[in-house]
Amino acid sequence: MNAEIIAVGSELLLGQIVNSNAKFLSEQLAELGVNVYYHTVVGDNPDRLKSAITTAESRAQLIIFTGGLGPTKDDLTKETIAGHLNTSLEKDEEAFKFIKDYFIRVQREMTPNNEKQAHVLKGSHVLKNEQGMAPGMFLIDESHQYMLLPGPPSEMVPMFKKYGRPAIEKALGRKEIISSRVLRFFGIGEAELETELMDLIDAQTNPTVAPLASDGEVTLRLTAKDVSKENAEKMLDEMETTILKRVRPYFYGYDDTSLMDEMSKALKESELTIACAESLTGGLFQSQMTSISGAGAVLKGGIVCYSPEIKKNLLDVSPNTISIHGTVSEPCAKELAENVREKFDSDIGISFTGAAGPGPHEGKDEGTIWIGIARKDSKTKTFLLNLAGTRNGNRARTVKYGCYFLLKELRGEGDS
Amino acid sequence: MNAEIIAVGSELLLGQIVNSNAKFLSEQLAELGVNVYYHTVVGDNPDRLKSAITTAESRAQLIIFTGGLGPTKDDLTKETIAGHLNTSLEKDEEAFKFIKDYFIRVQREMTPNNEKQAHVLKGSHVLKNEQGMAPGMFLIDESHQYMLLPGPPSEMVPMFKKYGRPAIEKALGRKEIISSRVLRFFGIGEAELETELMDLIDAQTNPTVAPLASDGEVTLRLTAKDVSKENAEKMLDEMETTILKRVRPYFYGYDDTSLMDEMSKALKESELTIACAESLTGGLFQSQMTSISGAGAVLKGGIVCYSPEIKKNLLDVSPNTISIHGTVSEPCAKELAENVREKFDSDIGISFTGAAGPGPHEGKDEGTIWIGIARKDSKTKTFLLNLAGTRNGNRARTVKYGCYFLLKELRGEGDS
Repeated sequence: MNAEIIAVGSELLLGQIVNSNAKFLSEQLAELGVNVYYHTVVGDNPDRLKSAITTAESRAQLIIFTGGLGPTKDDLTKETIAGHLNTSLEKDEEAFKFIKDYFIRVQREMTPNNEKQAHVLKGSHVLKNEQGMAPGMFLIDESHQYMLLPGPPSEMVPMFKKYGRPAIEKALGRKEIISSRVLRFFGIGEAELETELMDLIDAQTNPTVAPLASDGEVTLRLTAKDVSKENAEKMLDEMETTILKRVRPYFYGYDDTSLMDEMSKALKESELTIACAESLTGGLFQSQMTSISGAGAVLKGGIVCYSPEIKKNLLDVSPNTISIHGTVSEPCAKELAENVREKFDSDIGISFTGAAGPGPHEGKDEGTIWIGIARKDSKTKTFLLNLAGTRNGNRARTVKYGCYFLLKELRGEGDS
Repeated sequence: MNAEIIAVGSELLLGQIVNSNAKFLSEQLAELGVNVYYHTVVGDNPDRLKSAITTAESRAQLIIFTGGLGPTKDDLTKETIAGHLNTSLEKDEEAFKFIKDYFIRVQREMTPNNEKQAHVLKGSHVLKNEQGMAPGMFLIDESHQYMLLPGPPSEMVPMFKKYGRPAIEKALGRKEIISSRVLRFFGIGEAELETELMDLIDAQTNPTVAPLASDGEVTLRLTAKDVSKENAEKMLDEMETTILKRVRPYFYGYDDTSLMDEMSKALKESELTIACAESLTGGLFQSQMTSISGAGAVLKGGIVCYSPEIKKNLLDVSPNTISIHGTVSEPCAKELAENVREKFDSDIGISFTGAAGPGPHEGKDEGTIWIGIARKDSKTKTFLLNLAGTRNGNRARTVKYGCYFLLKELRGEGDS
């Protein structure tokens, strides 16, 4: 089956927002094995929308629309489709009740144009909107399937995952179930990972193995098809085992996780606390850590020691270390990690010091970075990075490396 | 003139990347007064690309392509267009020399497929690529104009700004010049700003005034047309003066700046240093500040004081303050700002403490946040926020408010 995604909204054509819905839906459809050959964006204009629908019908069986389901007179997706298909709209009582209740809940008065949102294409299967007011729709006729989804990603994404995707899977009428799993790696390049797994990737049929690199990480998406969910999962398990036998040192987690998530989880599970001394990262490590709710249980806090004098005065780095080795050095990283741990009375101290760029810092090349990890009653570990990105790319990458080294330490793989 | 933007690349249809190029180009074309009625995305497939071109030709005069100009055999945009227009490709010697020099510079061997990148559509105006290897092209025939741009935004954006946009402006053959300017506001809602300026927005013809809200900020884009650049700029100046007479307290800067940029610039100009005590923001203020190169001149550093004990032990907040008022309080914000300033020996101390959410913290509602600003020899100021976003939305908004209050303080508008 082929699909086309049509986004409706003049704000897209004016460049006010980016069409992230098309990216999300394309990813989802790829997982379902549905080919997407075109995306189209069209404004809030019935004639041009009609023409886009006609074009799409000539080249796709499944047409997914996003946007234009709201209460204002600009919102005309379902009206235009109804006209195009010679069908009508009718009030969906359940959706209407939901909208009425919403206004009671927020203690605002419902204006008449809000009722319009409860009108759905006759004969369509209604997709509940649990994050907003406009319901989605799925309509099947002899030749095509039409799915209408709201424009705001905060409404569209949950609706598609919970109601839209299962409706498409059902309509596909496949006996097979598709299961997929993402394995996440760090510290290995995409080319290197591909080389390690070349035979598996080349021989792939079921499960398939698809590598993708971004932001210094590499992911592998495994996708298996089988009539039984259990068998599909078993096939994924087996492929995962085969892959991890070869590249386990770089593996850190599944699906939507991140290095920071995994590291924070590992700290929590070990009931360990941490404190940070951040020079070039300037607070980035801690601000990412505190973006996760509940970080207070593990993060005691830290010091942003952007200047050498603060490293000396507030983190007790010895003046000798700074005058002999400079701040971009192993001894400085070591002292920072140990002293911040002690000052904050935490189990672990981590430090970041280096030359983020642009240009060298204290005679050290841009991208030369030291990370220190100190633990109570153990020898402090230090790690040298040589990065080649932009200033902020290097800072972000440094934080990832910090999470990665610490995660390995916490998982007992620190010396492998 | 109508335009259509065609992005070429299977990675877009697989949902691996988002089509940010279409957003950028749409914004640019809107500034030029060129209507964009459709965006199309098509994969690396010559037949489907040809069909997309034919469709676009039926509804637009200017067709802008992004992607598919690289060295691999997947890259086929210019080959397909050449076939479609019955023309040929020829080697551009300047582009070829540039590619050869590039390989010499990076000390890598040039493979034969790289030469392909120097081939351009016969009769086209070549657009230089100063960030990569594949040049862009602009071809005008009797009925249409075709612009070919590379896919990576890091190459496409500078090429379009420097060479693509002027080429289109020239082709438009307008005697009028379009000048635009963005005014940035904070601390006022879009609806409120619109109400203040309703008559100006309604009466707009030349210059036009277009408001846009995002991330808690509101911008106004002023666009003026005139045969003389000088006159157009004068019209913008006059409109700006009229607008700022009404809403100056909320205005903070022009065009692509940010509150953090303006605040950092103001600190640098005043030759003042700063130190920060960050509780709920967890380092976000400092990590944003240090993302700007040269931050070391103004930021001494700071303490992330995520736990009450760190507030007491490392920032000397009095135990009484915490036991009586709690950490989400005016006295705590005041002491944090004053004490961090003293500890880091800086001119200014700023503090952030509050309940980011989800849920209340120490009995204070989620979104209750205090900011303190301490200066040597002045009375410390405090500010209360009541925000209603998500945890990370509230943290980001808090940092913006911190920049805003400090900027007003530095501009001497702190007591207005």
